[in-house]
Amino acid sequence: MPSEKTRVFAQTIRVLPESVDEYKALHARVWPEVLESLRDVGVLDMKIFHSGDRLFMFMTTVKDFRPEIDFARHLSMSKRCVEWSELTKTFQKPVPEAAEDEWWTYMEEVFDFRSQLADLVT
Amino acid sequence: MPSEKTRVFAQTIRVLPESVDEYKALHARVWPEVLESLRDVGVLDMKIFHSGDRLFMFMTTVKDFRPEIDFARHLSMSKRCVEWSELTKTFQKPVPEAAEDEWWTYMEEVFDFRSQLADLVT
Repeated sequence: MPSEKTRVFAQTIRVLPESVDEYKALHARVWPEVLESLRDVGVLDMKIFHSGDRLFMFMTTVKDFRPEIDFARHLSMSKRCVEWSELTKTFQKPVPEAAEDEWWTYMEEVFDFRSQLADLVT
Repeated sequence: MPSEKTRVFAQTIRVLPESVDEYKALHARVWPEVLESLRDVGVLDMKIFHSGDRLFMFMTTVKDFRPEIDFARHLSMSKRCVEWSELTKTFQKPVPEAAEDEWWTYMEEVFDFRSQLADLVT
């Protein structure tokens, strides 16, 4: 996917140690309504990784994706999306540096290999 | 990049709070020898993200990339790569769940949107 036509986001959150197994089992087969509505609001790829008490999400979206608006749109598409969101929240806890109203925390990109390599070559 | 021809890896490590600014400044322009040797051992993309005391790395490589062997090969390519590695280590600290000999910790993929969506559609 050429980067000119997409955006990438990275987010982090804590997972409760006692909920790790259930969180993983649930994500091995995410509900169809959730997958379909994420696709419909412009998500192209999303991966979630786990280590210790941390989750990390790496997401690629269409270029004009606006997280605040489009995630709300995703939730409004099906009651199952709201249900999924409420269920997964019971396994999670914001990171210490999260803002007061933040659930998943956006991370800042500090290194992009491809763009720096391209600058070098040209 | 079709996933059949690549591998993805996610890793995490802590960054010392007092070193965040220096770490970022250094990564805004990684040394050419480091970029070139990463490319030469099979790294296709690498992004590093920051939040609080955490770094997260998301990496795409050629399919047959073997991290233990190929990162050692990368270091052997130039003294500058060893120098870079030693310098960046002074800013970092393994995560609490890291194994004894681990620096960056590999994370487990617990959700892959695209593969689950593909299963749904077919």
